[in-house]
Parts: sequence; structure tokens; C-alpha cells
Amino acid sequence: MTNSINIALAQINTIVGDLSGNTLKIKNYYDQAKKDCDLIIFPELAVTSYMVEDLLLNKNFQVKSIEYVKELAKLTSSGPAMIVGAPALQHDKLYNGAYFLADGKIKHIILKHHLPNHKIFDDKRIFEPAGLQDIIEYKDIKIGLLICEDLWQKGVVEHLATQNPDILISINSSPFEIDKGQRRSDLVKSYVKLTNLPFIYVNQVGGHDNVIFDGSSFVYGADGKLAAKLSSFNEELRLTHWHKQHRLIIEDSTIHPTMSLEHGIYQAAMMGLRDYVKHNGFNSVIIGLSGGIDSALVATIAADSLGPDHVHSVMMPSIYTSESSLVDAKLCAQNLGIKLDNIPIENSINILNKTLEPYLSGKSNITQENLQPRIRALILMALSNQHNHLLISTGNKSELAVGYTTLYGDMCGAYNPLKDIYKTLVYKLASWRNQNIPQNSLNQKHNPIPENILIKAPSAELKHNQTDQDSLPPYDLLDAILEKLIEQNLSISEIVAIGYELKTVEKISKLLYGAEYKRRQAPPGTKVTAMSFNNDRRYPITNKWNNN
Amino acid sequence: MTNSINIALAQINTIVGDLSGNTLKIKNYYDQAKKDCDLIIFPELAVTSYMVEDLLLNKNFQVKSIEYVKELAKLTSSGPAMIVGAPALQHDKLYNGAYFLADGKIKHIILKHHLPNHKIFDDKRIFEPAGLQDIIEYKDIKIGLLICEDLWQKGVVEHLATQNPDILISINSSPFEIDKGQRRSDLVKSYVKLTNLPFIYVNQVGGHDNVIFDGSSFVYGADGKLAAKLSSFNEELRLTHWHKQHRLIIEDSTIHPTMSLEHGIYQAAMMGLRDYVKHNGFNSVIIGLSGGIDSALVATIAADSLGPDHVHSVMMPSIYTSESSLVDAKLCAQNLGIKLDNIPIENSINILNKTLEPYLSGKSNITQENLQPRIRALILMALSNQHNHLLISTGNKSELAVGYTTLYGDMCGAYNPLKDIYKTLVYKLASWRNQNIPQNSLNQKHNPIPENILIKAPSAELKHNQTDQDSLPPYDLLDAILEKLIEQNLSISEIVAIGYELKTVEKISKLLYGAEYKRRQAPPGTKVTAMSFNNDRRYPITNKWNNN
Repeated sequence: MTNSINIALAQINTIVGDLSGNTLKIKNYYDQAKKDCDLIIFPELAVTSYMVEDLLLNKNFQVKSIEYVKELAKLTSSGPAMIVGAPALQHDKLYNGAYFLADGKIKHIILKHHLPNHKIFDDKRIFEPAGLQDIIEYKDIKIGLLICEDLWQKGVVEHLATQNPDILISINSSPFEIDKGQRRSDLVKSYVKLTNLPFIYVNQVGGHDNVIFDGSSFVYGADGKLAAKLSSFNEELRLTHWHKQHRLIIEDSTIHPTMSLEHGIYQAAMMGLRDYVKHNGFNSVIIGLSGGIDSALVATIAADSLGPDHVHSVMMPSIYTSESSLVDAKLCAQNLGIKLDNIPIENSINILNKTLEPYLSGKSNITQENLQPRIRALILMALSNQHNHLLISTGNKSELAVGYTTLYGDMCGAYNPLKDIYKTLVYKLASWRNQNIPQNSLNQKHNPIPENILIKAPSAELKHNQTDQDSLPPYDLLDAILEKLIEQNLSISEIVAIGYELKTVEKISKLLYGAEYKRRQAPPGTKVTAMSFNNDRRYPITNKWNNN
Repeated sequence: MTNSINIALAQINTIVGDLSGNTLKIKNYYDQAKKDCDLIIFPELAVTSYMVEDLLLNKNFQVKSIEYVKELAKLTSSGPAMIVGAPALQHDKLYNGAYFLADGKIKHIILKHHLPNHKIFDDKRIFEPAGLQDIIEYKDIKIGLLICEDLWQKGVVEHLATQNPDILISINSSPFEIDKGQRRSDLVKSYVKLTNLPFIYVNQVGGHDNVIFDGSSFVYGADGKLAAKLSSFNEELRLTHWHKQHRLIIEDSTIHPTMSLEHGIYQAAMMGLRDYVKHNGFNSVIIGLSGGIDSALVATIAADSLGPDHVHSVMMPSIYTSESSLVDAKLCAQNLGIKLDNIPIENSINILNKTLEPYLSGKSNITQENLQPRIRALILMALSNQHNHLLISTGNKSELAVGYTTLYGDMCGAYNPLKDIYKTLVYKLASWRNQNIPQNSLNQKHNPIPENILIKAPSAELKHNQTDQDSLPPYDLLDAILEKLIEQNLSISEIVAIGYELKTVEKISKLLYGAEYKRRQAPPGTKVTAMSFNNDRRYPITNKWNNN
């Protein structure tokens, strides 16, 4: 390195367990960057990908991962240095490591000190916590290198700062959440102010079952100003230019604009769906359209993320299906340019009712209501099996929270882009999408979702003249209470103290706890809040707590 | 306490979150024991129950739990002392505590030092680890008190022993696993030899979704001899008699005999099913009988655990159902004395095939095969909804491992007693049950499972002349390889090195990884091995690791 230094940030999308594929991708990015740069930085656990869970408890997997790192080290004998995240074994214990590769060798391994073990994170299950690590030196640059959580908890940056580094670099696998970008940026800025050091933050990008990494890597200069920001929800290789005069000064100021709230969430859903479909070897999806907003939004997300030709929709009317639902679903499919089949379920319902007649003495609404989505699921799964389309489910977070959804019916599917999106937010996303073309969209059309879908009262249409609000409070009220129960983890009495009606809060709390058994059998789906179901929030099914 | 001391072990069955119910049960046991004893010991987290997961992250739940402990403390103003497990808050941090209650007050709180965070355990997610705790003294007895994992890891007993206690007491929530009883006993015995101290081990009992606690509490005398052993899979209050002459000597020798391997597993399945059904407010179950061994065994377990009047079975023949399946299912239901309905699915299959005909161009076996279990599931769920019977699923561990099972078909159900039981073990349990009446059985009949079910080749009967071994290796081979992949976590090459055929091992490994998406939507079910699906073993769905 001379007085002029180029550092590349490689914000890449890796696949869990795909050691050879991930290593190949790292090599390709390295080759692409090498003639222009002195150092290239890859994300945390780039070799294995981050959401590896118990796969990393497999000894053979640990050893093979490290062999791939050794392969990468060889590249650096005739090129720039590399920082890359991968597992590390020391004295037969497993650590989360940041490897510094240069001159054809593993020069340093920095180990993660703070292990996140809350919400979706289980680092303490997998890794040993390391002691505080020292700065590393390469040529005449002193680097304070740290891994993800070591930024979020106190102690590590402070320790590194005492050793007078020239720069702080953190490699991350930081999941997307609403407002997470701002929190990362605020945190790093506060450390830059504290240390007067420039800071490079490299994050991974891509969908991993429930969890979405948004990229959005960035650099702060020592002056506390944002000097570079990479795009969100894209792979990106960014070269940054620095010079050293006593201290390291960054010369760049290419700032990718921050997305709106709605656009960020929409991108997360697109990326979650696309990566789930593609990384599991599928090429197309099938979606049941109902004429309602949830399935319309999911079909729109699917068409944007996979392209309209890869989205197949099916309308399966019953005697309870309104004319407007038929019209709205058809118009939506037309707007999206996706295939729509119309398969009425009346004959199937009739024959099943006839078959079951001797055993269904007395009327039960719930039996009759559930029969319909279950027949629809059976049809969709037959088409999925026949044509190798992945079935996508469309239940939003509000419905899943209170169990307003049929197990083995509309809950069926391999993936659910709306799993963590409240109904009120579903409306906002639909309106936003009608006005905007999302980044990376494969369906560049405005207004795909018919206006009538946005304004009519939501209904499951499982009996005559039914609306969701027959049995649920209005969605703005429902979502406000759910947010307090789930995201804020408040008790009934605390929520009542804020000003909500006791009877309503009690009912919703009871529904929330009582629907755990359904959620346990729900498909994975895009996490967008800080408290998504199942992974962030792990509750027993059998549970008699009254939450009072 | 005088020279003669009586200590009661209360091995109780608590329900997650049921603070008032659990506290009431503790009070009742206390009242029952108090006139005869000086100290009564309840299990770890008896107030909340153990498998509380994130419920314990709720501040209100923490505070309320401790209020219930204070209530229990009051009881001791005019009675014996009590040891009871409950959460503890110190400096706003949450610990797993063992409360020593006496003279109407909380006298001591011992905090858990080692937090298990592997397999099904997530203690580090919930609790703070405490430093090493000192012995406590009550009247003239010095007690080394410890909590569950503090026994399984080094350091805590050794530390307590340096303080010259008279006795060691551990309170536990130790889940049932094959051979676990022996491991507990060996461990405690080794500590008794090391310390020359008597040891009381109190465990909870009961089913909590997947996890079963078997009780099996016991006492070792200072002489290294087993002095008391409580029953397994039963609530029990046991009074033990001691006297002090320099050291504490136990006078008892009531040893409940150890169950056979098959009996223990059978009891776990009975208890898991019964507690899931009852604690979730149900009174009866419904099971699809196929004429095969899995559903026959599940129906038998259900009749034993809930009573034949609470078990409803349904045979749903298709054109592929053999005459012998009809005969065997009918005979099994008769033997068990359970209701059996016969609901042919042919008409439903035909109408669905007709409905789907335009969309199912070209034959697809998988579509046609899956249609049948899905129609059956739809019928069973209709009957479940109508009559409030909980649907029980019957897929064994071998099937779930390789995905030889239909999602939204035979996988449907609220609970699965065979979820962690390999097919070869299913046969052993069925044979054992034919020869034996299980403890606590509500169906005191021998030979409920027809001999033909035990000897015929297993078949899903989804097409003509199909047997499981058309697409799977023989079950003894399959299970041997699965056990190496799952329980031993070996790689393909390691298994081949033992002497198995590469092609077979590769195929099974691929099926195992590829079926994760199905297992993620499977119902909970009784854990009996050290590596049950989902809770013990947490794998990503999207996963390209080749396991080589």
C-alpha cells in the first residue's frame, strides 16, 4: 500500500451451506476488484452464509469451511488483501471469525467477542465467545476489525480505540428490520465521534428463509460525515478511495439514497420470495387469488420479483364468492400479466358434504367455513405438484396473530411474503406499489392492484355477507393492540392503562396465545419487524398464562 | 428439626404459564405433607413450569411469578420448610432460582450457575448466569442446593463440597430421553463417591408440547447406595426418613423398579399425548386408521392414555386400499374398543380429478398420490372441527426424516406421539404392547394390535402393489443410517467408512436435508431420543450443504 489506498466493499448474496458456491462467488468478486484495490472486504460468515443454525455443529462442515478459507488465502499471493467472515477453530472450539488474508496466507483471525442470543439469534448455541481482540497491522495501516454484534454492545470499539488504529472495519450479517438502517448509521456515527476514526461497515445481502439481509453497507469518514453508502437489496462491489496523511482520509462521497419505509419493506418481501424460490431450485409460483387485498399484493410482489411469466394464479370461487371478487381478481391478474385459472369448488364442496353428511349431525359454521379454504389448498397443492410451481401463502401478520386463518387451508404454502406485515401495512404497501415501480422489478407497470380492492371491506367470503369486522375489531385498532402485545410485550393491564378497552384487549390477547398452534405449522415468511413470529418470538403452544 | 428428620420429595406435573394453578398444586402437596415432614422439595421452575421459552421475557410474567413465591413463603410460618424452583430477579436481571422458604419468609435464593443452551435448551436466551453459590443452613442442617444443569457441568458440586454441607439437593426439569435415567443416576452416584454426601434429586413430571419430563426422582445415601427411587411418569409425593449422627443418614430403601426401554418410551408417548390433549382443553382425539402399524400403534397409545371412549378412528379407503387393510383396521379398532367410521374417499377423488382434469395435462404420480392423504386430512379436520376431537398424526421419525409423508395430508394433526420414534422401534413398541399392559393404562387389554399388522410389508397404499421398500431401503438399514446422520451427526464419508454403501447413504442424506421444509410445518410430538426434530436439531430450510 502507498499513500493512496483503495478499499473495496463486497456486499454479496450467499446461500446457506453452499461452501463451494459461496467461495466461487467470493473469488469472482475478488478477481473483479483486484486490479484496482489494496483490500477487499466481504461480510460476516460469507463462506458459510450466516443463518446456518445447527449445520455449524457438524464437525465436518466446520473443517470444510476452513479449508475453503485456506483456498481463498492463496488468491492473495498475487493480489490485494482480503477480509472475509468464516468459522474459526481454536483448541477444538468454534468461533465466529473475521479472517485477514494477505500474501497468500491467513495473516490474522479476529474472533467475535459478543455473541447475540436474543430474537432470531442463537450465536451462543453455536459459537464460543472470544476475549477482546487486538488491532491488526498490514503494511502501514492499523486496522480495528470487529464482527457485527461487537458493534452493538459496549466494550469492543473502546478497546480497539486504545490501540490507536487508523480505521475501524466491521463485517456484518445484520438482518433487515423497519428502521434498522437508521439505527446502524446512528450507532456507527456515535463511534466515529467517540474515536475520530473512519469506519467501514460491510453487510451481506439476500433472503434466508425468514431472514432478509438488506446490504446497505456504508462508510463514515473520520470527520463524522457519511462518505459512501451502497444500495439496499442488491449485490454490490464498491471501490472507495483513501489517502494517508497522518490519518486515513476518504475521498468518496457516493451515497445511494435511502429507500422509503414502504419501498424497503416491499424490497424485503421481493428478495425473501425470490431467494427462497430460486435457492430451493424452483422457477415459478402459484397463488390462490381471492379478490382480496392480501392475495393481490402477494401476486404483485411475485410478479415484480420473479416476472409475470413465472406467476400462476387461481381463482376458486364458491357460492359465497361475490361478483366483485371475481371481477377484481381477474382485473388484478390482467394488470399484472399473470396467468389466471378459474376453478370453481362448488362440486367438490357438495360431494364432500354428501360424504360427510352422516357424520356432521347438527350445523357447525366452523366446519363448513374451513372446508372451503381446505379444498382450495388441495387444488393448489395438486397444481403445485403437477407443474412444480411453489405454492405461496398470503396470510398477513394480523390474521396469523389472532388465528383468523385456516390451518391446512389458506395457511398452506412454502413461503409467505406477508407473514410479518400487519394488515394496515398491507394497505399502505399496496397503495405505494400502485404509485411506484420497485427497484429490480420485473414488471414495470403502475397501478396493478384494482382500486376496488383497496377500498372495499375485507371479507373471507366463507359465508354470506361476512366481513372480517364481524368477528375482529377494525384493523387499525387490532393492529395497534397487537403491536403492543407483540412488539412491546405489554400485559393486558398495561395496554388498558394506555386507554384501550379491557374487553377488546383481553379478547385479542387470548386469540394471540390461542393461535400459537397454528403459527407453529405456518410456512416461513419475510421478517420485517423487530418481533416476527416463530424466530424472534418463541412461545410454547400449551400455555395457560392469562397475560394480566 | 431434631435428630430425626423427614424430607418430602414432590414430583409434580405443572402447566406452562399456569401460575395460579401450579401454585395451588404446590400448596396442596405442601398441605398433604406438612404434618409429617420438616422439608418439602419441589422441582426446578415449579411455579412457572420449565418449557416457558420467551414467555419468561415478559416483565409482568416475571414479577407475577415471584409474587406467587411470596405467597408460598407465607405457608411456611406454621409448617415445614420448602424448596421450590421459580424465576428470580436481582438488580433487574432474571435468574433461574431455587427458593428456600421457611418461617414464613424467603430465607435464601440459590441461582443457577450453568445455563444449558444446546439441543432443546435455550437458558442463555432467558436467564443470566449466576456466580457460584454458597451452601445454606437451616436449623442445624447445611444444604448444598443446586439446579439441574449445575449437576451436569463441572464446578458447582465441587464448590459446594468445600463448604462441608450435610447433604446435596438438586431440583430439576430433566427431560425424558432413552437411557437418561441411567445417566442421571451414574452422575449423581459419582458425586456421592466424590463427596461422601447423601444426594436428593427431584425432577418434574409431565408433557410439555414436545418435551416429556419423566419424574424418576431419587435419593442416594452417603454410602453410595440408592436409598429411594420414585416412580416414572407419575406425580408422586415421597417422604424420606433421616437421622443425624455427625452425618445425615437415610433410613429408607423404597426403590420403584426401573421400566424397560419399551415401557419407558411407551409411557412418554402416553403422557405426551394425554397432557397435550388435556392441557389444551380437549377431551377426545380422532385418528385416521390405515390398516398399517403406525396408526394402529397411535390408536393403541391413545386408548391407553385417554380411554377407548375418547378415541375416534376413521378408515378412509380408496381403490388402492387392500382388503387386508380394511380387515386389520377393523379388528384393531374392535380390539381397542374404539369407535371406527368407514368413509370411502373414491367419490371425492373422482370429483376432484374431474375438476382438475383440464389443469393436469400428462400423468403425475406424485399429484395423484398426494391427493389421497389430502382428502383424508380434509375429512378428518372436518370431523375434528365438528366434534371437537383433536386430530392426532401418526408419521414416525423414519418417514419424517426422509419426507416419506404428505404435507397437508397424513402430516396433519395437532400432536404426533411417533414423531421421534424410528420405524424399527415402532415395531418393537407394538410387540411390547401386545404382551404388556402399560402403567396407568385406561385400556387393560393384551394384544390390541392384530398380528397381521406386525408381519405384513408396510405400504402407503397410494397406488397399486406399492410397498415402502419400492422407494426406500429396508427400515433396519434406513434407521441405522438415519441414526448416524441425525443422532451421531456424521458425514456421508464417515458413514461409508463404517461400511455402508455410498449410493444409499448419499440418497438418504439428500432426502433428510430436502425434507426440512415439511418438518418445519409438522405438528409437535413426543421427544424420546437425544436428537428429536425441530427442537433438538435446528436446521435451515434453504441449505445447499452436501454433507460430504
